[in-house]
Amino acid sequence: MWTIIGTSKFCATVRFGVVKRPLASLFTCSRAMAKSKFEYVRCFETDDTCLRNCYIVVRLDGRNFHKFAEQHKFTKPNDNRALGLMTRSARSVMEELEDVVIAYGQSDEFSFVFKRSTTWFKRRASKLMTHVTSQFSSSYVFYWKEFFGEQPLLYPPGFDGRVVLYPSNRNLRDYLSWRQADCHINNLYNTVFWTLVQKGGLTTAQAEERLKRTLAAEKNEILFSEFSINYNTEALLHRKGTALIWEKTEETITKRMKLPNEEEEKDVNVTRSRKRVQAHHCDIIGETFWEEHPDILEDDG
Amino acid sequence: MWTIIGTSKFCATVRFGVVKRPLASLFTCSRAMAKSKFEYVRCFETDDTCLRNCYIVVRLDGRNFHKFAEQHKFTKPNDNRALGLMTRSARSVMEELEDVVIAYGQSDEFSFVFKRSTTWFKRRASKLMTHVTSQFSSSYVFYWKEFFGEQPLLYPPGFDGRVVLYPSNRNLRDYLSWRQADCHINNLYNTVFWTLVQKGGLTTAQAEERLKRTLAAEKNEILFSEFSINYNTEALLHRKGTALIWEKTEETITKRMKLPNEEEEKDVNVTRSRKRVQAHHCDIIGETFWEEHPDILEDDG
Amino acid sequence: MWTIIGTSKFCATVRFGVVKRPLASLFTCSRAMAKSKFEYVRCFETDDTCLRNCYIVVRLDGRNFHKFAEQHKFTKPNDNRALGLMTRSARSVMEELEDVVIAYGQSDEFSFVFKRSTTWFKRRASKLMTHVTSQFSSSYVFYWKEFFGEQPLLYPPGFDGRVVLYPSNRNLRDYLSWRQADCHINNLYNTVFWTLVQKGGLTTAQAEERLKRTLAAEKNEILFSEFSINYNTEALLHRKGTALIWEKTEETITKRMKLPNEEEEKDVNVTRSRKRVQAHHCDIIGETFWEEHPDILEDDG
Amino acid sequence: MWTIIGTSKFCATVRFGVVKRPLASLFTCSRAMAKSKFEYVRCFETDDTCLRNCYIVVRLDGRNFHKFAEQHKFTKPNDNRALGLMTRSARSVMEELEDVVIAYGQSDEFSFVFKRSTTWFKRRASKLMTHVTSQFSSSYVFYWKEFFGEQPLLYPPGFDGRVVLYPSNRNLRDYLSWRQADCHINNLYNTVFWTLVQKGGLTTAQAEERLKRTLAAEKNEILFSEFSINYNTEALLHRKGTALIWEKTEETITKRMKLPNEEEEKDVNVTRSRKRVQAHHCDIIGETFWEEHPDILEDDG
Repeated sequence: MWTIIGTSKFCATVRFGVVKRPLASLFTCSRAMAKSKFEYVRCFETDDTCLRNCYIVVRLDGRNFHKFAEQHKFTKPNDNRALGLMTRSARSVMEELEDVVIAYGQSDEFSFVFKRSTTWFKRRASKLMTHVTSQFSSSYVFYWKEFFGEQPLLYPPGFDGRVVLYPSNRNLRDYLSWRQADCHINNLYNTVFWTLVQKGGLTTAQAEERLKRTLAAEKNEILFSEFSINYNTEALLHRKGTALIWEKTEETITKRMKLPNEEEEKDVNVTRSRKRVQAHHCDIIGETFWEEHPDILEDDG
Repeated sequence: MWTIIGTSKFCATVRFGVVKRPLASLFTCSRAMAKSKFEYVRCFETDDTCLRNCYIVVRLDGRNFHKFAEQHKFTKPNDNRALGLMTRSARSVMEELEDVVIAYGQSDEFSFVFKRSTTWFKRRASKLMTHVTSQFSSSYVFYWKEFFGEQPLLYPPGFDGRVVLYPSNRNLRDYLSWRQADCHINNLYNTVFWTLVQKGGLTTAQAEERLKRTLAAEKNEILFSEFSINYNTEALLHRKGTALIWEKTEETITKRMKLPNEEEEKDVNVTRSRKRVQAHHCDIIGETFWEEHPDILEDDG
Repeated sequence: MWTIIGTSKFCATVRFGVVKRPLASLFTCSRAMAKSKFEYVRCFETDDTCLRNCYIVVRLDGRNFHKFAEQHKFTKPNDNRALGLMTRSARSVMEELEDVVIAYGQSDEFSFVFKRSTTWFKRRASKLMTHVTSQFSSSYVFYWKEFFGEQPLLYPPGFDGRVVLYPSNRNLRDYLSWRQADCHINNLYNTVFWTLVQKGGLTTAQAEERLKRTLAAEKNEILFSEFSINYNTEALLHRKGTALIWEKTEETITKRMKLPNEEEEKDVNVTRSRKRVQAHHCDIIGETFWEEHPDILEDDG
Repeated sequence: MWTIIGTSKFCATVRFGVVKRPLASLFTCSRAMAKSKFEYVRCFETDDTCLRNCYIVVRLDGRNFHKFAEQHKFTKPNDNRALGLMTRSARSVMEELEDVVIAYGQSDEFSFVFKRSTTWFKRRASKLMTHVTSQFSSSYVFYWKEFFGEQPLLYPPGFDGRVVLYPSNRNLRDYLSWRQADCHINNLYNTVFWTLVQKGGLTTAQAEERLKRTLAAEKNEILFSEFSINYNTEALLHRKGTALIWEKTEETITKRMKLPNEEEEKDVNVTRSRKRVQAHHCDIIGETFWEEHPDILEDDG
């Protein structure tokens, strides 16, 4: 576990030397620093620092989760164990990376938003996205049992990730709105589709055919008139997905301590405020959520 | 698990439209395609395609593995269970991503080399590095038990990753040589250090002081003259690390089948050739390894 | 002058084909499109699209202009002919690229700010910076005579350029303030330095020594007490540099035309409004300039 | 003309400081170094260093040269004055940037190939492409008179540029072959087209119609059977374009000097070898050119 100094610092050093050294030796690693003649290969690394003053979003997507869901018998259209595990893994990421100000997840995807001014990993895109992906993936396996009990995990699942930058609050909110609108569209479709199959007795092919080119209103109507289901009273978790944010909570614990001017130790109630990750299943497209949580975003100015 | 068309394809489509459309509408997402007015945010994604005809290396490093090793009581200077788990996880990555032609690992790091001409994930750096990191991380937790038995994993571990490109065979081999030279330097140091502590009765501070500014020859001498240890006969796994490559193996299985011109079924031995991931603990700096496995690299020309 | 289809479009096409074609052929240029078997090399070009919703700044700097100034006998500390030529060349750039909302220049540098929402050259950094640099450089030679008359240009001058992105109005204004603060610091120094040499009879080495570690106030004091020069009444062009913006102007021209209900043609005054590049030599750090020209910046929101 | 320290060095310094300073101050420019509070905006610049051990190609294209050619009455299908001016400007670039090992031009484009191991401008793409574009553009105006005499240049012309990297000798040669194949295809087309118009009396529309979908052999046949023109004896300059390379030449000059053991000064012939840019109009697709000039490329190994 011997740690090297870090590549970028190494190259920075070398580059820094330019002030004094002749140009030709710029990318020659100085003998004094190099532990071997091969060390020059470090200089092939490229800088992928994210533009300052932009929100950094890392989005993860499950790889081949359609197949994964079938093999692990996820219930249709939504499996609460699977959604719970996604959220648990996302919380694990946030607790590791406190600069994530909000995370939003639905289905087999999760987005993590780093604050505009974050300096985690010097804002290097590769570090940010691999760290998030890694923590999420290992957590998914680690916490599997908490949600699936004795049902075994058949193989290690994969997620891929990407980084996207958003320069303004409006852009960032539109990004999150885009994902929540996507959640709505997919969940409405899936709800009707599986109702037609599970309660209506249609084959999946028939259900697909039935829904082709239907609008949202028509899908709502099928649910309501044929199955007496009011889509708007379906679980918020399914309709809105999950937003995770940091919230201050008051924690009261009892401590045994000696108070000043008293002789003996006593049980004392101590209240302290702590930041905790809290889940919300609500609309994040409109103004209300953002007005209620004014600390998530930083001013554009 | 409803799948969107894929962001880059979406933007490619839009961009493609430039031939016919006026310039101003270039980045306006056409209404017909967009599922919501927020979808324009897709266009903030940037292309990170890796330069063609270069080897793509993804290197993973354990995060805070010094602490992780202590908390999980890894033996010093090397823990064969931990090394075995690293290798098992790396194999899992290779079996998912067949375009990895060689992987090399030591300590808490592993490098994966994609072939020059790979088109996996359209050579997108973010996809390649997050997929490798994710598969490795989930495998690490998934296979933990195989190597640590009942000793529990205390928390989900993290790895970070990066992508580096190498344009020539020489550069790539120098990269791998750099990592193996690093393995050697660290392992020699750690071997002497922990021998001084475990067998020589020194404190860690004393051992560190003793080794300050010693050369390789002096370290070898300490081991030999004071502890009768010949470093060159220490385990290859520790001195050379682990190289994983694809190798053809013959597999003979017995199948019951009816041969032509015969009336009854018989047991028949069938031999078929299969590609498998094989581990090597040997020198990869010199020519021998590469001459024996001429298929790993593609010609520069 | 036969025009190729354009590289990015070409590659987009190929990439787009992925939906239908097997993965392996992704980067093989289809025979039908390729005019030669060499055309695959196009696919080595990389995308350098600038992040949306950011101001794109292209800054040019004269190369070896210290030497250029001496060889062309520029007056010290400022040469109005040289400054005029810089501004004329910058105007030429703006007239070619109307999406430049403001340009700011001083000494041998000029910065061009593209509006946040520009789609010029599809926001490709290389196109934007090379086009600006090229237009500026050819204009510098083209308009030389207008400013230097019969004094010959001895050799073609060089400028280098770079692109920087700014996500918010604040950041952009701070960028421009940075350049104007730089103008102030350098011009104050140069004014005192050359006054000491030209009027005070010091050698350049003595003047340098005299100014070492002096603060702004001390430099002002030298000018005032020793040479009766009030720095604050020096030319604004030198103290503030040059900001170029687009402004609406009314233009009245006389046209000969036949009015309705009249039989013969008459001279008629026609007034039309036109956008023109206007130069300002004023403070752009404070609020006044921006309040007076509210159209330069777009809202962050 | 006061020179700032250079942005990348500045940021490197700051970044370098991370070893000692708390993370939060990473991107805060230290007061001591900053000349103003605005200087933080420097840190928005991004690194665009080109991958090591790759050929760096900068290609320039004339902007709107179709119109430029018409306005300046370029002869059709080729104007030797215009081609000469392009080549003169390219030579000016090479003389400024000696690390360009070969340049190839045709029509209104020119490509400049930097040697694999160049460290000019620390391999920064923006610096390389803007410097080439700037030098070329100012030279084009500067040398105009040498080729067009009294015919005036009507306005400053524009060129755009781009950078492409090629990792192997094969890729680089294929790039140059691609450009020369393009030269051939276009020149054959243009030669027949303008012969049909100028000697055959066709309108441009008729000539275009006549050539639609004709193959190379058919175009050759039209030239030969209808106009007795053998395309293969047309000027090499037009059929092959222009390759510029550095070549050693012997220069003999007469110097007046005093030889040892002699009393008086005498005229002495002194021969010295000098590198000079030489133009070639020949095939660069086949092996011959490269075998005759083995110093242009560096080994892949």
